[in-house]
Amino acid sequence: MKIAVDAMGGDYAPKEIVAGVELARDQFNDIEFLLFGKKDEVMQVLNDETNITVIDCSEVIDMNDEPVRAIRRKKDSSLVKAAMAVKSHDADAIFSCGNTGALLAAGLLIVGRIKGIARPGLLSTLPVLTADGTQASFNLLDSGANADNKPEQLYQYALLGRLYAQSVRGIENPRIGLLNNGTEPHKGSKLTLEAHKMIAADDTINFVGNVESRDVLTGPCDVLVADGFTGNAVLKSIEGTAKATMNVIKSEIMQAGPMAKLGALMLKPAFANIKAKMDQSQYGGAVLLGAKAPVVKAHGASDAKTVLATIKQIKEMIDHDMLQKFEQAVAVHNEQTNSND
Amino acid sequence: MKIAVDAMGGDYAPKEIVAGVELARDQFNDIEFLLFGKKDEVMQVLNDETNITVIDCSEVIDMNDEPVRAIRRKKDSSLVKAAMAVKSHDADAIFSCGNTGALLAAGLLIVGRIKGIARPGLLSTLPVLTADGTQASFNLLDSGANADNKPEQLYQYALLGRLYAQSVRGIENPRIGLLNNGTEPHKGSKLTLEAHKMIAADDTINFVGNVESRDVLTGPCDVLVADGFTGNAVLKSIEGTAKATMNVIKSEIMQAGPMAKLGALMLKPAFANIKAKMDQSQYGGAVLLGAKAPVVKAHGASDAKTVLATIKQIKEMIDHDMLQKFEQAVAVHNEQTNSND
Repeated sequence: MKIAVDAMGGDYAPKEIVAGVELARDQFNDIEFLLFGKKDEVMQVLNDETNITVIDCSEVIDMNDEPVRAIRRKKDSSLVKAAMAVKSHDADAIFSCGNTGALLAAGLLIVGRIKGIARPGLLSTLPVLTADGTQASFNLLDSGANADNKPEQLYQYALLGRLYAQSVRGIENPRIGLLNNGTEPHKGSKLTLEAHKMIAADDTINFVGNVESRDVLTGPCDVLVADGFTGNAVLKSIEGTAKATMNVIKSEIMQAGPMAKLGALMLKPAFANIKAKMDQSQYGGAVLLGAKAPVVKAHGASDAKTVLATIKQIKEMIDHDMLQKFEQAVAVHNEQTNSND
Repeated sequence: MKIAVDAMGGDYAPKEIVAGVELARDQFNDIEFLLFGKKDEVMQVLNDETNITVIDCSEVIDMNDEPVRAIRRKKDSSLVKAAMAVKSHDADAIFSCGNTGALLAAGLLIVGRIKGIARPGLLSTLPVLTADGTQASFNLLDSGANADNKPEQLYQYALLGRLYAQSVRGIENPRIGLLNNGTEPHKGSKLTLEAHKMIAADDTINFVGNVESRDVLTGPCDVLVADGFTGNAVLKSIEGTAKATMNVIKSEIMQAGPMAKLGALMLKPAFANIKAKMDQSQYGGAVLLGAKAPVVKAHGASDAKTVLATIKQIKEMIDHDMLQKFEQAVAVHNEQTNSND
């Protein structure tokens, strides 16, 4: 398989991106990498070109670029050229740690959508924080690719999310939940009421019903389906609240007496574990599901280890023919829908 | 002023409700209380009837009752009779710690809406958690009274929320933010894009623009306007994440060695402070803004102290003629809108 990598995206690019690619190359000898970036910068940090082809790009899309405009104007950027490689079938997937909006735009406008999927959704992986300390994760889809969704699109996210959880996470029959403002089936907005009906009507889906945002971190489902606006709001609330809570703890300790400071010192290893559990990057990158190939975004602050983990995640999608399964599932659904008309 | 109190709503009703009312009665001699509940139960916990009239009710709406049905069928319940007292102008406000949905339904169907306000919104108060340990709060509106909102309604929430912050919190020129999926003005759903335009066009509003859910706890605004579906999702995410984070800390400490356990012991006062800061009940009850009178819900687990704080909050609304100001603001806006047509 071939993976197109944007070597210039991310806070520590190209150094950590290239280092991560080399780690992955050393571990998986069936992957060829197309590394897009400023050749002189990339060559300075690349040790060994085995299974790695560097493609020179004169431009870089940065975090401040307006996504759609950047995709249209910066034709010689590492991101656009990486996406073009997927479009021309020279690569099977695209991976970037750069501008999320620009990567989504490249996914939609250059890589393209699977036939029958109007609005690809962004799938993120979040931690499950159980009281007994056991650890797991769940997927949230759409976590922000769209600002407005239709019920049919939420139903498609249930199908796509299920296939993702089966392919990449090896869950045989993933529990699918619908993010809603109450657990009872009669609760919801016009959108979620209709989506609930559509998902519930599909016997092949292991539907656990509505899930409230208050409960998502306790692990009621493996895949949480949401419209992109609310999914994004919940994702960012979780990030912000976890951060604010840790800040309050820090400030309380700073203001407390020497006993409390000593106590905090003794708890240092426990706090390091907590930080690691809350760290989303360990769970891999966000994936634009519904695009014709894996379009994968890892955190801007990714280091080589995160890059390696994300490449592993992409390899799982390709090894399990996830995209072909998507196309089949959507085609079957569309056929049924049309024959019902 | 007269306040109608549902003595039977809440986990510790009627004992803590009655105790809280007595505390408020002792503190404010200008409030008369109408206490609705099972008279024999209420009389058992009531010490002194000064300024308190007990009205016997044979029924109680509990947490499992379906809200609208309960309001329609349980005509002799403490909640319905308290709302009827507001409707007939025998009371100026209604207060309950019971079934939120039923109180909202009573507010909409019995107390009624201010003319020109199609969808009253629920205003909640949340803590601002700053890194330097200083403490404040902000209001979120609508935090869940509605599942579907229109742009015009979000604009009305900006007007109502501003008057609330001025009346109850004494903020002269409250900063109004709009909950959105990006900070730039061009970001958003169809709903938030349109609402943004309407709020920004009103020069009298101190509009700070879009606010992402990731930042709300850092205090970017005094009033955060949201549609009820997303507002509810963000409110519950914050609750759930704070709880999950504290659970992870607990479980990490339980699994850690004796040194860490000793450390945790030393940090006990700091953790108690953190819990207090995160506790929303100290900030008062949730208010249905847009109803003809204050309709106020405090947490189900409220004790006498919370009941007292919430009655104080209601007194501020009445003392500052908040409802008359609402009616004027809405009338002025509707006149302008009509003259523009």
